[in-house]
Amino acid sequence: MERYDIAIIGTGPAGLSAAITAKIRNKKILLIGNRDLSTKVQKAHTIQNYLGLPSVSGDDMGKIFQNHLDSMNIAITEEKVNAVYAMDDYFALQSANQMYEASSVILATGVVLGKPYPGESELLGKGVSYCATCDAPLYKNKTVAIIGFSQKEEAEAEFMAEVARKVYYIPMYKEEISVSDEIEVIRELPAEICGTDKVETLQTREHVYEVDGVFILRESVSPSQLVPGLQTEDNHVMVSQQMATSIPGCFACGDLVGKPYQYIKSAGEGNIAALSAASYLDQKRRAQKSA
Amino acid sequence: MERYDIAIIGTGPAGLSAAITAKIRNKKILLIGNRDLSTKVQKAHTIQNYLGLPSVSGDDMGKIFQNHLDSMNIAITEEKVNAVYAMDDYFALQSANQMYEASSVILATGVVLGKPYPGESELLGKGVSYCATCDAPLYKNKTVAIIGFSQKEEAEAEFMAEVARKVYYIPMYKEEISVSDEIEVIRELPAEICGTDKVETLQTREHVYEVDGVFILRESVSPSQLVPGLQTEDNHVMVSQQMATSIPGCFACGDLVGKPYQYIKSAGEGNIAALSAASYLDQKRRAQKSA
Ligand SMILES: Cc1cc2nc3c(=O)[nH]c(=O)nc-3n(C[C@H](O)[C@H](O)[C@H](O)COP(=O)(O)OP(=O)(O)OC[C@H]3O[C@@H](n4cnc5c(N)ncnc54)[C@H](O)[C@@H]3O)c2cc1C
Ligand SMILES: Cc1cc2nc3c(=O)[nH]c(=O)nc-3n(C[C@H](O)[C@H](O)[C@H](O)COP(=O)(O)OP(=O)(O)OC[C@H]3O[C@@H](n4cnc5c(N)ncnc54)[C@H](O)[C@@H]3O)c2cc1C
Repeated sequence: MERYDIAIIGTGPAGLSAAITAKIRNKKILLIGNRDLSTKVQKAHTIQNYLGLPSVSGDDMGKIFQNHLDSMNIAITEEKVNAVYAMDDYFALQSANQMYEASSVILATGVVLGKPYPGESELLGKGVSYCATCDAPLYKNKTVAIIGFSQKEEAEAEFMAEVARKVYYIPMYKEEISVSDEIEVIRELPAEICGTDKVETLQTREHVYEVDGVFILRESVSPSQLVPGLQTEDNHVMVSQQMATSIPGCFACGDLVGKPYQYIKSAGEGNIAALSAASYLDQKRRAQKSA
Repeated sequence: MERYDIAIIGTGPAGLSAAITAKIRNKKILLIGNRDLSTKVQKAHTIQNYLGLPSVSGDDMGKIFQNHLDSMNIAITEEKVNAVYAMDDYFALQSANQMYEASSVILATGVVLGKPYPGESELLGKGVSYCATCDAPLYKNKTVAIIGFSQKEEAEAEFMAEVARKVYYIPMYKEEISVSDEIEVIRELPAEICGTDKVETLQTREHVYEVDGVFILRESVSPSQLVPGLQTEDNHVMVSQQMATSIPGCFACGDLVGKPYQYIKSAGEGNIAALSAASYLDQKRRAQKSA
């Protein structure tokens, strides 16, 4: 399998800044995220405090960033990474569709807002899952609920419907839904996931649904769930001044590592993370040579 | 005396980013530095890694930053700050010409490269000084050497010549020198400052000059010398993730706080420092109200 030098997860200012710096350092990079960069960039009305771009709309800032990527031939791989595993000598990244390998990783996935649902953490791996395409085979002929936070998750529901006996789809967005008839769309707010050893029911404010599995498909995955073993604090990844996490070769930057939540702070940290990853790789190479 | 909310020292990307963020937070700011911003901005050939400004010359980056300041009516006070003193409730800033007062301070003076001259640290305050206009009165009818790192320092030499009996001026730059005839210009490299209890001689590679004082006028002052009592390490100011220094109300950012030395990293840290200063001021105000 192709082995990248640096995999960068996230296409907000932190990930983009990391990508341009890593590219300048001649690293073979994989930039994973969204082709429309970041909703937090797109949605901002007017931004005053990004030095060099006075009074810019989020939409224009997105175009300016895209232009910077284009000028350096940096492409975005549109995927959601569900898990990053630290192997002996590299990292394995799991997305819904594929596995990727990289010698180092930069996490730039932004901040995860909102609390988990009651029962979510307790029943994780016991019927609660964050990746439908990964775990679908386990739910053959069973009943599952999918809580989707964006229209993109409708594809995951369709995929699940081919395997499971019954799929409830609970959209957490206002846009129109377009799924096959066999999928039952429920416009209710999830309240709690219940079960003792494994998931038994999903309760909304209005009803109780008997299910074998609950898939929660948020726009971002909490960091400790994304990278098992990563040291976190209050849902932020703990980093050194050089943006190194508790796992060697894994760096983090942007909103993900703490307040203030700001564009230029995120971009600055992305730059640091990329330089740290580059020197991590250089050191590793030298150590291997002398061994 | 006018009391500013936040005094920002330095007009590189760190100081400018701090200034725009502080201004957005409606703070009364004093931005001290150079009207041509930073030589490290001006002198760069092509910059690739400032997200949002692809392939920009240092000169153009300077203009873009200036435009951002202008659009927000932020003016630069052209001064060199020689010392910052933490008083009970505020900071006193001493420049060659004036004193300033501010409730909080952001240091963004860039990194100080180069080692002190042999004897410099040992004889500091015993004939070695960094501010000619401040200490000139002590050298009435005496002999002094002034080591100037930029053309601006020629004015300091002129001022000194009005007081001292004899002034040697040692330029550390290549540009043309224009000083009065009574000032003796020496085109030699300083090697050592000697003396036991106080300065006795300045030795260059070629000669030994008997002097009572040596003024070393670098573009920037080392941080521990700029702010007495500040905790530093290897000439970098030690800061928390929120850019707080060891002195409450004093924040630092940019090259000054450590590597990597990069524009966007400096700008990101300036943004954090300004938000931290703003919340320091808010907390102080609340504490005073409830007292
Ligand atoms: C409406 C609004 C206005 C704002 N205004 C300002 C302002 O004026 N000034 C300011 O400084 N800040 C502002 N902010 C804050 C700013 O948006 C954030 O601080 C900034 O976007 C953080 O950048 P980031 O790169 O860390 O994360 P984000 O911009 O959140 O980007 C994270 C990226 O990672 C992707 N991602 C997440 N998980 C995964 C995964 N598992 N696999 C693949 N990709 C993933 C996301 O889809 C996204 O593309 C505003 C925010 C909002 C919402
Ligand atoms: C030739 C060159 C090319 C470079 N190219 C790149 C590049 O491509 N990409 C990149 O990311 N980085 C590059 N850098 C590094 C970059 O210039 C620095 O990291 C950046 O300028 C640091 O910003 P700063 O705000 O911390 O400090 P500086 O830009 O050094 O600004 C410090 C400011 O403080 C002022 N000051 C200092 N002391 C005082 C005082 N006592 N009183 C008042 N004012 C004071 C100075 O005059 C100056 O205006 C380059 C540097 C050089 C020299």
